[in-house]
Amino acid sequence: MGIDYKKELESAAKTMILVHEPDTLIKMIVRMIVQRVRISHAGILLHDKDRDTYILTVSRGTTGLKIPKGFARMDADNPLIRFFRERINKQIFNDGALVYEEAKILNQHKIGLSAQKILKGVLYQMEIFETEVCIPSYFRDDLLGVLLLGSKKNGKKFGQDELDFFVALADDVAMAIRNAQLFKELELELNKNKRLFIHTTVALAAAIDAKDHYTHGHTARVTDLSLKIANRLMQKNKNTFNEKFLEHLHIASLLHDIGKIGIPESILNKEGPLNDTEIRKMQEHPTVGSVILQPIKELEDSILGVKYHHEKYDGSGYPEGLKGNQIPLIAAIISVADTFDAMTTDRPYRRAFSKKEAIVEIQQVSGKQLNPQIVNALVQLYAESKI
Amino acid sequence: MGIDYKKELESAAKTMILVHEPDTLIKMIVRMIVQRVRISHAGILLHDKDRDTYILTVSRGTTGLKIPKGFARMDADNPLIRFFRERINKQIFNDGALVYEEAKILNQHKIGLSAQKILKGVLYQMEIFETEVCIPSYFRDDLLGVLLLGSKKNGKKFGQDELDFFVALADDVAMAIRNAQLFKELELELNKNKRLFIHTTVALAAAIDAKDHYTHGHTARVTDLSLKIANRLMQKNKNTFNEKFLEHLHIASLLHDIGKIGIPESILNKEGPLNDTEIRKMQEHPTVGSVILQPIKELEDSILGVKYHHEKYDGSGYPEGLKGNQIPLIAAIISVADTFDAMTTDRPYRRAFSKKEAIVEIQQVSGKQLNPQIVNALVQLYAESKI
Repeated sequence: MGIDYKKELESAAKTMILVHEPDTLIKMIVRMIVQRVRISHAGILLHDKDRDTYILTVSRGTTGLKIPKGFARMDADNPLIRFFRERINKQIFNDGALVYEEAKILNQHKIGLSAQKILKGVLYQMEIFETEVCIPSYFRDDLLGVLLLGSKKNGKKFGQDELDFFVALADDVAMAIRNAQLFKELELELNKNKRLFIHTTVALAAAIDAKDHYTHGHTARVTDLSLKIANRLMQKNKNTFNEKFLEHLHIASLLHDIGKIGIPESILNKEGPLNDTEIRKMQEHPTVGSVILQPIKELEDSILGVKYHHEKYDGSGYPEGLKGNQIPLIAAIISVADTFDAMTTDRPYRRAFSKKEAIVEIQQVSGKQLNPQIVNALVQLYAESKI
Repeated sequence: MGIDYKKELESAAKTMILVHEPDTLIKMIVRMIVQRVRISHAGILLHDKDRDTYILTVSRGTTGLKIPKGFARMDADNPLIRFFRERINKQIFNDGALVYEEAKILNQHKIGLSAQKILKGVLYQMEIFETEVCIPSYFRDDLLGVLLLGSKKNGKKFGQDELDFFVALADDVAMAIRNAQLFKELELELNKNKRLFIHTTVALAAAIDAKDHYTHGHTARVTDLSLKIANRLMQKNKNTFNEKFLEHLHIASLLHDIGKIGIPESILNKEGPLNDTEIRKMQEHPTVGSVILQPIKELEDSILGVKYHHEKYDGSGYPEGLKGNQIPLIAAIISVADTFDAMTTDRPYRRAFSKKEAIVEIQQVSGKQLNPQIVNALVQLYAESKI
């Protein structure tokens, strides 16, 4: 032993900066210390800021230390926490590390009565965890955590140089953990925001859906089916159908009928057949939808799905009469999902097709109205009972 | 000099982990090196992954080094970059650091002809920047940056121990910079997502607005005014009106009339006065809005603004007849902004009030229909010509 494990741990501590998962990081550190320093077990008490409590992560080591129930967390009033938070350690031990053997034989008169009382509690905690040394980690003035070390496997005591080394290491560790926590917080906020966006779009799309008596739940079903189709296509072509594509498709299918907000209710809910003027008005909805979303730069790719979901593979669709591969894939997928959902729900002028009937009908227009590659994916999903 | 600046720089390098602004971090590092090591100037060439180019940040030092135009960036084919990217440095110098004096007198036969050619280019670059030593930083296999050191102020050469130290330091710096960059990327994505959410909500709210012939642009104006009022209130009470509150208010005011999507167009656009049934239907919109948004947990606080923006201070409003401080502040603010905008726009049954007339009217119902504290803020904004 000696300088070797120190160098290893030091350089490991540096690479830790780029581990941004706090739990993984802590487990990694604890395991590394146990293996490299060859001690029975180690643990880290880490501050949970939200609840002002300290959570214990322990490597059991080869001795199989058991953590007593109720000791996985320590509140701020726990003597071990108070001892380091109130810097009683600094008053007694210059380097801040707390060695069980030294603390045990400490002259009671050298420290105050209240400090002595806390120290007694600390020693009890150390006995429970079979801890020989405690090393606090601070970030600025906050106690970020406490490193707990079991006994060395060779039976020797920790030397002063080793204690110095661990005090320095604990600071690196504290910094790396703090960094990982900040990263995690930012990631959580990002995920929260993504959820907020999707949920709000779902709610507003559903509200617009609700205007159209005949399409209740249509948007949600088309979205679900579009994503299933894309996931199926993804299995064969991961370059085109990647995560970004799925994200754009998700948004596009949620918003595909948003332009219906521009169609008068009298047309939307008309019981009888529509006349030419009404049909023309109805067919404006993909364009109206794309105009509504146009100002949002980030939606550029999704807008293609909204604008072209009524184009047909043979060029007979609207608004532009695009053909075959001119139709963006994102729109061609929504088109297939839209057709399937329209066929399998009741309409004023006909009852719903069964799924089986719809699949047969759709296969007949594959390569004519609909993109055959995408129809294939739909048929496969049906065959696998996934829709 | 000697061990002192090393300890200082080492410990500084550690705290760098928590500086998450790459530009600040790089400037900090360069300045620190110049001051502590007492050299004429220093610089860092940092990789811009998107463009595969290296951007130069220089501390001019006391000698006031000028960067020649066009040298603020180095492309991947620049000899200095190629030298380190192709690891020619490792072939020639064991430690990876490149010392101008050593490179100059290098035996041409010991290295290949092409390496010699690149080295010539490197020496030219070093002369331009008056650089005595170049230290590369790698992260895994990527050249993340190059540290450029000017000459020592005491006129001496850099010793081997100093070079070793800088090679180690450069790795810490590389790691810290990479960490900061990752942080920055995450932050940018978060901001992009926030913009996406707000812009989409704006677009959908505007589309719903458009259904109501008389309120064109109403939502945008109410949102703008609500935020101005809240900012005014923030000056006096930063605890209640904080950034989180502003965010919730922003969303709430964008969505305050979303429930109108549930009102038939025949009522929304009726030319004459509404009958009792129609009025009741119209008054459902705050409740309908809150029901639409209810499933979105993240909108909890904003929903209060949607649901209660038609409550009145004296309890005569709807849907629940809440009074005074029972009405959430977020709703009370939207209520004042909503009232002001309604008064200052034309309606089928009356022409618009001037802003001055509206303010007088609103002051008369302050403490009756409207919360006086918020009316005060509106009046102040008007007095300051901010609305």
